[in-house]
Amino acid sequence: MTSPRLATYAVDGSVRYGLATDNGLVDLSARFARDFPTLREVIAAGALPRLIDAASKLSPDHGLDAITWLPPIPSPEKIICIGVNYPDRNAEYKDGQEAPKYPSMFMRTPRSFVGHEAPLVRPRASSQLDYEGELVLIIGKAGRHIPESAALDHIAALTLCNEGTIRDWVRHAKFNVTQGKNFDSTGSLGPWIVPYNDESQIADIRLTTHVNGELRQDDRTSRLMFGFRYLINYISTFTTLVPGDVIVTGTPTGAGARFDPPRYLKPGDVIEIAAEGVGTLRNGVVDEAL
Amino acid sequence: MTSPRLATYAVDGSVRYGLATDNGLVDLSARFARDFPTLREVIAAGALPRLIDAASKLSPDHGLDAITWLPPIPSPEKIICIGVNYPDRNAEYKDGQEAPKYPSMFMRTPRSFVGHEAPLVRPRASSQLDYEGELVLIIGKAGRHIPESAALDHIAALTLCNEGTIRDWVRHAKFNVTQGKNFDSTGSLGPWIVPYNDESQIADIRLTTHVNGELRQDDRTSRLMFGFRYLINYISTFTTLVPGDVIVTGTPTGAGARFDPPRYLKPGDVIEIAAEGVGTLRNGVVDEAL
Repeated sequence: MTSPRLATYAVDGSVRYGLATDNGLVDLSARFARDFPTLREVIAAGALPRLIDAASKLSPDHGLDAITWLPPIPSPEKIICIGVNYPDRNAEYKDGQEAPKYPSMFMRTPRSFVGHEAPLVRPRASSQLDYEGELVLIIGKAGRHIPESAALDHIAALTLCNEGTIRDWVRHAKFNVTQGKNFDSTGSLGPWIVPYNDESQIADIRLTTHVNGELRQDDRTSRLMFGFRYLINYISTFTTLVPGDVIVTGTPTGAGARFDPPRYLKPGDVIEIAAEGVGTLRNGVVDEAL
Repeated sequence: MTSPRLATYAVDGSVRYGLATDNGLVDLSARFARDFPTLREVIAAGALPRLIDAASKLSPDHGLDAITWLPPIPSPEKIICIGVNYPDRNAEYKDGQEAPKYPSMFMRTPRSFVGHEAPLVRPRASSQLDYEGELVLIIGKAGRHIPESAALDHIAALTLCNEGTIRDWVRHAKFNVTQGKNFDSTGSLGPWIVPYNDESQIADIRLTTHVNGELRQDDRTSRLMFGFRYLINYISTFTTLVPGDVIVTGTPTGAGARFDPPRYLKPGDVIEIAAEGVGTLRNGVVDEAL
């Protein structure tokens, strides 16, 4: 059985959210936007089950070919990305250091992401656009100092991320990868969110990245160095997590920069990030307009 | 002559904005909130001069003792902080490296800041709360690939930041200072914004930090390693700057961590960040509630 899928999308110039089916989108914002302007407010109100139930009785309002997919949460308060979180990734850095004691993390702007099927933009400033497939947690319940035992209760939904990166700009500074992680439209989020039900949904699922049909990344969430419970506990030590917050949980080994010579993305490439039970996030690549 | 000062504040449980005078606040949101819900929309519409003109004919609606100061822009799209930007700060790191070629930068959440006169919170997780006084640019006009020659035209206003930092958590990770820069309520922004008029307002102004009346940081913006024009040009290479964006431009030497032994902040301390022509941002310190 497929999990219900809730998406944010544009149609006829307006931004909407709804239930994604194989035949199109059931427009939930047309029916619920007064109470819940975006999926962020739906999640904050704990209203995902109610809206899914309402949508299941309705026929699609918009065909799949009529819509543009957008990142599922339009303006999260924060998007926190985990830097090195699969075992072989740490070894890839070849700096002789032991596995890190704490996770590395950085933030991205909403503006650095596009939705499903929209092209990633290779910027004028660099030819080193790279992919990173990641599983994403969407926070549903606010909290600070959340114990690991209660951490998963704070997850509302799951999605996928291509945490696209400009490699040479990641190392522009002595500290911090901010620049290389925040070029406009270099990553993607989506295609939709699926509600989180229980730990079996995320404990050991396969996460893959294909480029032009070739498998490049392939790992399982059971191998995360910093697991989902730990991340929620650790992050909530310093910041209050709030509904709609996005935690991008780290990428397996096999990004383009790790090949010799590196295999960066170029216009025409197609990148597909997939996770069992969540879906497949697909994007092409174009050059930034001059 | 004092520049006009526009503030965001809370009174009787509601968030407002207005003109700050020595006798109180002229409530502009009561008159303009339908067109401009927050100062961010005022700035985006280029309406600062019109609102200042309207307010100058009115008497204060709220006394200074009736309000709580808040960060001037409630929900900026992004808050970008520059890491090492005064000459002696680079030397403080004592790692023998030359001055960096590009600026280091990181992002902070709005949640990590309080307003003027609100206490900074020393978290349970650390006793290493430190101050960093900084001048802040508020973007007024959207742009990408902004040339240095036009960069200053994109500034709408100025404010101050105590870019408060949890020192031991800054070094939790191999890369990135995210954690130590994002503890809830550890920094401050304000007290208000003053409209940006011309380069003489920012080219060579004195920036100081006092702790309990003792001068700790004292430098001039003319000594910035990466000047304001450069920063706007460089940042806009990777991201589109939009109205209300906050650029925190770096702190002079003399933070508490640089003393031997370090002089971290503790409950009861009072920190004052001041810049000529902008104002004085004052905060106390309390311990996080248990």
